[in-house]
Amino acid sequence: MKHIEHIGIAVKSIDAAELIYKKILGSSSYKREEILSENVLTSFFQIGDSKVELLESITSDGPVAKFLEKRGEGIHHIAFAVDDIYSEMSRLKQEGFILLSDEPKKGADNKLVCFIHPKDTSGVLIELCQEISQPVNSRG
Amino acid sequence: MKHIEHIGIAVKSIDAAELIYKKILGSSSYKREEILSENVLTSFFQIGDSKVELLESITSDGPVAKFLEKRGEGIHHIAFAVDDIYSEMSRLKQEGFILLSDEPKKGADNKLVCFIHPKDTSGVLIELCQEISQPVNSRG
Repeated sequence: MKHIEHIGIAVKSIDAAELIYKKILGSSSYKREEILSENVLTSFFQIGDSKVELLESITSDGPVAKFLEKRGEGIHHIAFAVDDIYSEMSRLKQEGFILLSDEPKKGADNKLVCFIHPKDTSGVLIELCQEISQPVNSRG
Repeated sequence: MKHIEHIGIAVKSIDAAELIYKKILGSSSYKREEILSENVLTSFFQIGDSKVELLESITSDGPVAKFLEKRGEGIHHIAFAVDDIYSEMSRLKQEGFILLSDEPKKGADNKLVCFIHPKDTSGVLIELCQEISQPVNSRG
């Protein structure tokens, strides 16, 4: 794990939350991106080496919609940058953690991503992120 | 705001959570510190420019105890590093945010800290942190 890549915040309205986080962080969102596989619209703010990622659900039944229904707006997950997501996934599996997918998926912001089940992490949904432009171990 | 200074995670047992985060992050906690004003025992892990701060309540009625009772273990707050906490507090007040104290308080890890009320921040408890060793505007 290299650094905090981003903090994901579940919001009801990305328009409203972008105005709020522009005031807090003192800078504007640098991009929006829709992630159809997760049913979310995302918006990114840079802060140091990390990002704040706002997440609005684009369906009524995706993971962010369910989170909002259960807990309301707030921090949804934390993502750590890794150099080699395959070796980190293998290491964490050996340590006994449950991963939410057997293979990394294509996430927002040009990343390969994988999540650790929050039952093993003191209730925190943790994402691993690897830049796709970096070399990736070939797994067929 | 300069970077994510830390992520605070509310846990039931700091002993158990230290073992978990040592496995996840691949490094050990570098210190524990008790913050009596907040009724918490903290434990810090370095990751890049940021830290993961574990928080165990040392009383049954402090803010972390209430959080655990209401929501269970999970991310409690996010802290951003600032150069001048007084000017950031003034700027945020002018932007309409409600701060949880009129003056910064002494927090963990040699910091002056202040929190923004989560009702204005899409449900996120946000902390501002300034290193105490840095010059501080004199306010009497």
